Amino acid sequence: MKHKFSHYTCSLCGADYAPEEVTYTCPKDGGNLNVSLDYQSLKDRFSPDHFMPLPEASLWRYLNLLPVQDPGGIGTPLRRAGWTPVYKPMRLAEKLGLRNLWVKDESPNPTASFKDRASAIVVARAAEIGAEIIVAASTGNAGAALAGMAAAVGAKAVIFAPRTAPPAKIAQLLVFGARVLLVDGTYDQAFDLSIEATQEFGWYNRNTGFNPFTAEGKKTAALEIWEQVIRRMPNKEKPLTIFIPVGDGNIISGVHKGFKDLHTLGWLAHMPRIIGVQSEGSAAIANTFHQGDEQIMPVQANTLADSISVDLPRDGVRAIRAARETGGTYITVPDDAILYAIAELGRVGIFAEPAAATAYAGLVKAVKEETVALDDPVLVLSTGSGLKDVKAAMQAVAEAPVIEPILDAVKKVIQ
Amino acid sequence: MKHKFSHYTCSLCGADYAPEEVTYTCPKDGGNLNVSLDYQSLKDRFSPDHFMPLPEASLWRYLNLLPVQDPGGIGTPLRRAGWTPVYKPMRLAEKLGLRNLWVKDESPNPTASFKDRASAIVVARAAEIGAEIIVAASTGNAGAALAGMAAAVGAKAVIFAPRTAPPAKIAQLLVFGARVLLVDGTYDQAFDLSIEATQEFGWYNRNTGFNPFTAEGKKTAALEIWEQVIRRMPNKEKPLTIFIPVGDGNIISGVHKGFKDLHTLGWLAHMPRIIGVQSEGSAAIANTFHQGDEQIMPVQANTLADSISVDLPRDGVRAIRAARETGGTYITVPDDAILYAIAELGRVGIFAEPAAATAYAGLVKAVKEETVALDDPVLVLSTGSGLKDVKAAMQAVAEAPVIEPILDAVKKVIQ
Repeated sequence: MKHKFSHYTCSLCGADYAPEEVTYTCPKDGGNLNVSLDYQSLKDRFSPDHFMPLPEASLWRYLNLLPVQDPGGIGTPLRRAGWTPVYKPMRLAEKLGLRNLWVKDESPNPTASFKDRASAIVVARAAEIGAEIIVAASTGNAGAALAGMAAAVGAKAVIFAPRTAPPAKIAQLLVFGARVLLVDGTYDQAFDLSIEATQEFGWYNRNTGFNPFTAEGKKTAALEIWEQVIRRMPNKEKPLTIFIPVGDGNIISGVHKGFKDLHTLGWLAHMPRIIGVQSEGSAAIANTFHQGDEQIMPVQANTLADSISVDLPRDGVRAIRAARETGGTYITVPDDAILYAIAELGRVGIFAEPAAATAYAGLVKAVKEETVALDDPVLVLSTGSGLKDVKAAMQAVAEAPVIEPILDAVKKVIQ
Repeated sequence: MKHKFSHYTCSLCGADYAPEEVTYTCPKDGGNLNVSLDYQSLKDRFSPDHFMPLPEASLWRYLNLLPVQDPGGIGTPLRRAGWTPVYKPMRLAEKLGLRNLWVKDESPNPTASFKDRASAIVVARAAEIGAEIIVAASTGNAGAALAGMAAAVGAKAVIFAPRTAPPAKIAQLLVFGARVLLVDGTYDQAFDLSIEATQEFGWYNRNTGFNPFTAEGKKTAALEIWEQVIRRMPNKEKPLTIFIPVGDGNIISGVHKGFKDLHTLGWLAHMPRIIGVQSEGSAAIANTFHQGDEQIMPVQANTLADSISVDLPRDGVRAIRAARETGGTYITVPDDAILYAIAELGRVGIFAEPAAATAYAGLVKAVKEETVALDDPVLVLSTGSGLKDVKAAMQAVAEAPVIEPILDAVKKVIQ
């Protein structure tokens, strides 16, 4: 049987490459590569009701739509990435005046962030092409995800992290047994260094916006949103509007790819509208989007949302198109709006890290500025657990009082 | 239709109480109360194949076996507690020489620990009895779970935490919007103070080993282990041996209760063997167990496993019986064995907090001392995410090297 993964296409020049011809970006212009599946064959063989039945409660229920074969790792955390919950927080919806609001919470992933999706697919791909050592540059989450997914199946991981990454994220890398190199520099320097080292040592590189399989992993969030929300929406006339936090641009590109795949298969009538949200302190993609351009200019990133703090986004072009091609836009929010969003999500039982809460902060602004209508169905993607960055969480809330262990002290505080 | 929750029975004197007659412990001797269901009626109406089908991928798939009615909270984290993954880490099994080893990982719970099970049930119970404010004393996890589950459905929570609880756990409480009182004293002082305040202000108290519904929530882990492992075991002749970390004794009591419920229903032929694992620095229950006694003597707890650091266990008697009545035992491990266990679990992609890793540390010791045979099927309960206590995780691993952002620096470290 023909492999369902048919070819790569460059997102800039449109050149096609056979699966075995290239590995990362376009050899001509460095553009990010899109993975193409054999859609006709998929359409002939499967229907939307033809997925693995639950309990394959993970992204692997979409194996038929992924460019890898059997991922192995049964009984390990690799097989539990994805299939995260979609909540419907009524009190937040009422407060914003929205009729329908969902929040997709990526915290229950094995390493507690969205990045497990990409890492799971890359680890499966590495096994398929016989790569033994997988390397990534990461502000933390992508590295932890790679370290965790690699540990799950006994693969080796090398992580280049900026030494400024939050301790919780570094601790995860180390506990998962990855070889960790703390780079005395920015994320961008760690990124470049990891690619140099990949070439030098013959490793397999997972970097976001470089390895085309990361977007394939990330697209599974779109497949889930389609199955968990879109297919169940009572009123299918207004398309879903989705708010996504954006740093490198690879999550929004991946989600866009997922919806395009579904559309190509004829399983999704109306593309959702995709809105990217960046921190004001790291807004390279939003800046370019609003200039009507595709030429990403780097910034000096400075935001507490460390997971989306990026000087030079590595998947900027596809990230811009995700919004432009779906009638979406880009929104920027200041750090204090991100802290407010952490507290708001917390009050309905969702504990988000700053980057994750950024999407909700974008929604708050979008409602205020009428970028979304109150009867638009809206989904916010919360990309990682608040436990990843406790220091930021502490900034979002007032300190608790310390009391003596006597009832009178309680009375004083309660009254 | 009769309520399936028929009555309470005191675990010490055996007195029965109607559901509306008591709320917490036995009025005669303070013994922990067991909840009894109307088992005959359940047997007549349901069979093991009669649960809500997935995607009720949560503990609520066992609603028929729980002493609460409709919990509400659809579309909120309350409905996602439980149904945590069971992994089969082959490399750990091989290293220990075990034929069959499973690890049930409680990290994907909404607030990242086992305690969500208890809090979900208590929050449902509170709604049922019209309680508006739910209060708990907690070293962190139980409080975060109550705060999170209460936030999910818009209920009010008051948490008494020792001021020494890890910052990550305090941050969670605050982000979930709970009223937090940091008690300048031990967990035990916070416990007593919370009960005093409950009486003073007419609140509803969730305390572990006090409120009988916590064990009912925790029993759902046993129901899941039964469905995920025991019913699927190829060789059903040797019973499963389960390792459980023990502090207050309420988790092991709850798990025991779950298996007893299944046994009473005739759905479980052989009770699993339950082994409690305590830190040497907090071993009140293990001490009493090995004296062949039920009279728990307090200790001066001192262990890095803060979630199971308890001077006076509040559910000690039932905890002792869980091991004794199932042919199990109690094992104690030092802190350095707990740190070793964190690193071992990490290498297969499971990031456990110290208390959670304690169960695995107990297994390592049990294999060495031949407390378990190599062909015993074994399950280890890992009760919470390592992100809850990053400081401890850092102690479990060697620090990562900091390098200049140049290839030569990589070469030096790699060679």
